[in-house]
Amino acid sequence: KEIAKLQLIKKEHDKDDKPQFSLKCAKGARDFDPQQMAVRDQLFSTITSCFKRHGAVTIDTPVFELKDTLTGKYGEDSKLIYDLQDQGGELLSLRYDLTVPFARYVAMNRIKQIKRYHIAKVYRRDNPSIQKGRYREFYQCDFDIAGQFDPMIPDSECIRVVAEILKELNLSDFVIKVNHRLLLDAIFSISGVSEANFRTVCSSVDKLDKISWEEVRNELVKEKHIPQETADKIGTYVNLSGDNSLLNKLQTDPLLSTNQNAQIAINELQLLYTYCQRLLIGQFVTFDMSLARGLDYYTGVIYEAVLIGGHKYEVGSVAAGGRYDGLVGMFDVKNRAVPCVGVSIGVERLFSIMEQKMKGEKIRTTETEVLVMSGEDGFLEQRLSCIAKLWEQNINAELFYKKSSKLLTQIQFCEKEFIPLGVIIATEEQKNGGVKIRNISTREDKFVRDEDMVLEIKAFLGNKKCS
Amino acid sequence: KEIAKLQLIKKEHDKDDKPQFSLKCAKGARDFDPQQMAVRDQLFSTITSCFKRHGAVTIDTPVFELKDTLTGKYGEDSKLIYDLQDQGGELLSLRYDLTVPFARYVAMNRIKQIKRYHIAKVYRRDNPSIQKGRYREFYQCDFDIAGQFDPMIPDSECIRVVAEILKELNLSDFVIKVNHRLLLDAIFSISGVSEANFRTVCSSVDKLDKISWEEVRNELVKEKHIPQETADKIGTYVNLSGDNSLLNKLQTDPLLSTNQNAQIAINELQLLYTYCQRLLIGQFVTFDMSLARGLDYYTGVIYEAVLIGGHKYEVGSVAAGGRYDGLVGMFDVKNRAVPCVGVSIGVERLFSIMEQKMKGEKIRTTETEVLVMSGEDGFLEQRLSCIAKLWEQNINAELFYKKSSKLLTQIQFCEKEFIPLGVIIATEEQKNGGVKIRNISTREDKFVRDEDMVLEIKAFLGNKKCS
Repeated sequence: KEIAKLQLIKKEHDKDDKPQFSLKCAKGARDFDPQQMAVRDQLFSTITSCFKRHGAVTIDTPVFELKDTLTGKYGEDSKLIYDLQDQGGELLSLRYDLTVPFARYVAMNRIKQIKRYHIAKVYRRDNPSIQKGRYREFYQCDFDIAGQFDPMIPDSECIRVVAEILKELNLSDFVIKVNHRLLLDAIFSISGVSEANFRTVCSSVDKLDKISWEEVRNELVKEKHIPQETADKIGTYVNLSGDNSLLNKLQTDPLLSTNQNAQIAINELQLLYTYCQRLLIGQFVTFDMSLARGLDYYTGVIYEAVLIGGHKYEVGSVAAGGRYDGLVGMFDVKNRAVPCVGVSIGVERLFSIMEQKMKGEKIRTTETEVLVMSGEDGFLEQRLSCIAKLWEQNINAELFYKKSSKLLTQIQFCEKEFIPLGVIIATEEQKNGGVKIRNISTREDKFVRDEDMVLEIKAFLGNKKCS
Repeated sequence: KEIAKLQLIKKEHDKDDKPQFSLKCAKGARDFDPQQMAVRDQLFSTITSCFKRHGAVTIDTPVFELKDTLTGKYGEDSKLIYDLQDQGGELLSLRYDLTVPFARYVAMNRIKQIKRYHIAKVYRRDNPSIQKGRYREFYQCDFDIAGQFDPMIPDSECIRVVAEILKELNLSDFVIKVNHRLLLDAIFSISGVSEANFRTVCSSVDKLDKISWEEVRNELVKEKHIPQETADKIGTYVNLSGDNSLLNKLQTDPLLSTNQNAQIAINELQLLYTYCQRLLIGQFVTFDMSLARGLDYYTGVIYEAVLIGGHKYEVGSVAAGGRYDGLVGMFDVKNRAVPCVGVSIGVERLFSIMEQKMKGEKIRTTETEVLVMSGEDGFLEQRLSCIAKLWEQNINAELFYKKSSKLLTQIQFCEKEFIPLGVIIATEEQKNGGVKIRNISTREDKFVRDEDMVLEIKAFLGNKKCS
């Protein structure tokens, strides 16, 4: 009988627990809690400082664009675009990256040159993987330079921007792989690939950082029907990587030296390398013929930064970009082109590494400097008067939203939240026209007169900040 | 013949100009250019500082929620929610405000108390009006306090937050209208409105800041079939406004004194007023019986800040909020409530006022401190070496992306962009192992040796910042 009763209670309880609706975020999206926000702010602040160091302005564009604006820009990836429901009016889609909206902005405003950064969320209906830091809603941090300039100068600055950010974050060693779309096209061409097949071969080659050459070769031959000898010929090139000396070797390669695109590309890469050395980042650059980049719109130099060393963080690319000289023209009725080069920082991956590194660390999520306390009943109004004085003076201050609490609880809250100073309101001190201020870390109390309170607190906090 | 030729040319030209697609933002959405971003950053920075001054943490939630999460929270306004197309998987909607996602977050993480701010864009398929600053994509800046506390303490802090922000922005004088949902309910009840009609009467009364009492009365009687004498009775109350003395008057009102809700509300408002005086913001508070607030979820004190004086800026409410004790419970299977109070700053309106005020002002959109220049050909590589040294030392620096430009053009660029310092690389100085640095505003040049350059520049910029 007892068991039956307990079973009944359990059953009732189970029923109670069953949710009538799902209490969750959309698949592939997530909330950021205050700790995560503190880490994210730190990351964004490093990146923004770097973008500003290079003189970039910032712009913002809407989270949705006309569907037509995104059409025909992403090749096969277009299926990953989120569309809004047709509720009457325009057909809209969520932005897939920040590059296409940027090109639309440049064309729409007939801008001839601009160096801008944009930090915002983008949306892809991809298969989410939290482990790999792949989300359906994620941040991009883009830095782009648009305008007609002398070759490779803005391109080398983009690579410098990547190097500065990764050096400052100091998460791990890194290399920046560099290649050129025209060089890849030349390799495909001399290997016997028809121009119509350049992009599809390119997308197979792009997988070389994830799968072996044998697997890529298989895909080329079996799935894409590329002749074996063509695939093998491609293989002799795309597996090459190295420093500047590789460029010299390629320049004298008998087949490539007859190809105009190859010669243009190699000259540009050599110039880029010279500029990178001048910019003190030559040591980070590796020329890598397997780097292809998925997106259709690249037209010249392409690059991708990867973390190396220790293989502690297997996160793949953490920054990538390249030159896209045709995209703005696609938005112009007269096809007026504005050449562009840019880079996108893979903040989600960097964020997940920072989170792992900081695990267990106490991260402050507020900037509260003072807690206005009392251990005695009846001092709520005095606490309110006191805290108003502090707020008027721009001092970050909090109080407990209770008529009375134990002083110890309030002090422990300060310790837990790293609030450096307490103001204690008590009968004795009130009689003498003042309050106690407590240094939370040393536990020292000091009586201060009401009229001196703000100055005393500012002096204390000023010393704190300098020490 | 000449005319026919010209007509042909014109026709060709017209054809050329016709766009094949529309190059625009989605209706009701907009881009922010660099100047607007600078103004927006200034506004957000003022608001964020205030939220941090009050010890708030920040969180972030996705731009879309499960459709079910938003269902049944906004009453009639639900028709303005943007839905995403069903592309397989979950049904999603763009967030309509930040309050419902916050309540979802609190319930999902079983949070008992939190004080958080959230600055993010929300989406409403409303009729856009650029003149009124009404967009379909717009920012909200929300500050909310969740938790079980003693009455009116967090509520008064929310009002203090509004006052601090509006004082600091210094755009115009302002008042903060305050009312109480239970007091409104009591007024409707004693006037003879049935409980089922409270919300619909409420939404008519809410229009009193835009239309006259006669029009509201008309709507109540003719559209909502409220008896004339009931409407007139309501009119005797909802047109009242004033300071604390109004509360005393209402407390002794023969009809209201018999209504329990009225007594609870008046007591709370009196307590709130006492706390507001302690917090030095009593002078901004006006009790206004016509304030009703559209949204369904408010349960207690409600408030709204409006700019006054000069009527130069007819923008209506610039901040609004109130107490919503039931919303979190709607997301909990056991209906566990977490009482909340909060405020949302109407940044789009504030932004449009700031933009008007700053019209014609030159607003810096970059933070560049140094331009590395040369008037002579062939110094590109030296300029790159020089600028790398500056970037390594965290100095914000730019250079022209050209092999050669006129020195005058570069100096004029500094003047136009308010870049305070130039580094000039020239044959003569290079021979002597250094460069010239130029104070752009005084036009003074100074020779500095290469090894002293960074220190000299830092000294110059340091003085700039202090002066």
